[in-house]
Amino acid sequence: MPKLKCTISYDGTNYAGFQIQAHKNTIQAEIEQALRKMHKGEFVRIYASGRTDAGVHAKGQVFHFTTNLEIELPNWKKALNTLLPKDIFVHKVEIVPVDFHAQFDAVEKEYRYFVLNSNEPDVFQRNYMYYDPYHLDVKKMQNACKTFIGTYDFTSFCSMRSNVKGDKIRTIYEMSCERNGDIVEFVILGNGFLHHMVRIMVGMVLDIGSGRAHANSIEKALAKKDRREAGVTIPPEGLYLWEVIYPNKS
Amino acid sequence: MPKLKCTISYDGTNYAGFQIQAHKNTIQAEIEQALRKMHKGEFVRIYASGRTDAGVHAKGQVFHFTTNLEIELPNWKKALNTLLPKDIFVHKVEIVPVDFHAQFDAVEKEYRYFVLNSNEPDVFQRNYMYYDPYHLDVKKMQNACKTFIGTYDFTSFCSMRSNVKGDKIRTIYEMSCERNGDIVEFVILGNGFLHHMVRIMVGMVLDIGSGRAHANSIEKALAKKDRREAGVTIPPEGLYLWEVIYPNKS
Repeated sequence: MPKLKCTISYDGTNYAGFQIQAHKNTIQAEIEQALRKMHKGEFVRIYASGRTDAGVHAKGQVFHFTTNLEIELPNWKKALNTLLPKDIFVHKVEIVPVDFHAQFDAVEKEYRYFVLNSNEPDVFQRNYMYYDPYHLDVKKMQNACKTFIGTYDFTSFCSMRSNVKGDKIRTIYEMSCERNGDIVEFVILGNGFLHHMVRIMVGMVLDIGSGRAHANSIEKALAKKDRREAGVTIPPEGLYLWEVIYPNKS
Repeated sequence: MPKLKCTISYDGTNYAGFQIQAHKNTIQAEIEQALRKMHKGEFVRIYASGRTDAGVHAKGQVFHFTTNLEIELPNWKKALNTLLPKDIFVHKVEIVPVDFHAQFDAVEKEYRYFVLNSNEPDVFQRNYMYYDPYHLDVKKMQNACKTFIGTYDFTSFCSMRSNVKGDKIRTIYEMSCERNGDIVEFVILGNGFLHHMVRIMVGMVLDIGSGRAHANSIEKALAKKDRREAGVTIPPEGLYLWEVIYPNKS
């Protein structure tokens, strides 16, 4: 049975997150429902690179599944996009080796976080950027971003509700931010991310940028390994799972 | 009693249009409900520059109302924005002369229409731009836009369901389009617009740009004064009421 890898984008606004949950509208449920239709009522499980929370978006989420259907790849894409709602779009369907796994084979993930830093909110961005009206010192924030680059125990930057197995040590390869007009865009690359990790990290950088927190508060929080040492978890609407990277680019 | 003029933006996605309708979610209903709360249960009617259809957006819609409340202007803005849902935002509240009328005093209106002209749709723009995947010749479209500039009988460019009083003669002061990456933006300025007028006009320009219609089809359609001579009414999601202009800039 062929194994297929799909790359999708979705607007997370109207979903309770990626992962399937009873009586809730989720991305996974929509995709499995579309696949069930294509497979004449037969259930097909999908396996994603990871879940995303309610309201979080994706530009390049990846999942895989196995199928007994014999369909040309372009027709897979067409059929899925016809069956899926308009806030989920399949960009790419590829055949992958039978041992490919969207979660376990991912070596790197890129997240982006968008902040609207203007005098007034923008009704058209309310679900797509976090609105922060405070003056932000971008230079300070760029320095703060660099503090995260490296391998650390991210216990302070992980939701207390997290039930992660294993340690909370993760490596951040790159973290930067830039202002374009009223928009501040964060880019974060790492080998893995804990629950709420990006939203707590960017939240602390914004606190430093606005002067609500001291420049050394990230180092302190990392050292303490205590969730209460880092700031609040900022809202999901600014967060995008941007890309999932696999070793052989498959 | 002071008369107030408000300038607002709204995301029309979740509304059945601007104008109040029984059992429907409308912009006007939301605003009048907010004003009723501020006036301790007393009903306050608002008068807008004009209605917008379901799914159509606004960056600069204007309405007026009279009130017996004595509130400082900045507090009006604050109170309204606190009471209104997040997809409606009040940018400006001004005191205007008692004879000001948001509809009858408007001398010019600017609409914009956004087209996403890319190989694939964008889930994040599905409610904010019209997706047209066909190759568009922008030069041809820029010429087509110019055909509309001037004073014409726009019967062919008006919904047959329209119950407009008086004639269908309108003046277009400016109409242009420009491509920025995958986005084609139309700017249309006129002294007044009939029901569906902008959506039929831009639709015909797109038909010319993609080769579905001949370059002279706009002149022909204008001359025939018959709705069936112009093309389809393209979707509301690309349309924005951008600005309403009053003689003394009040």
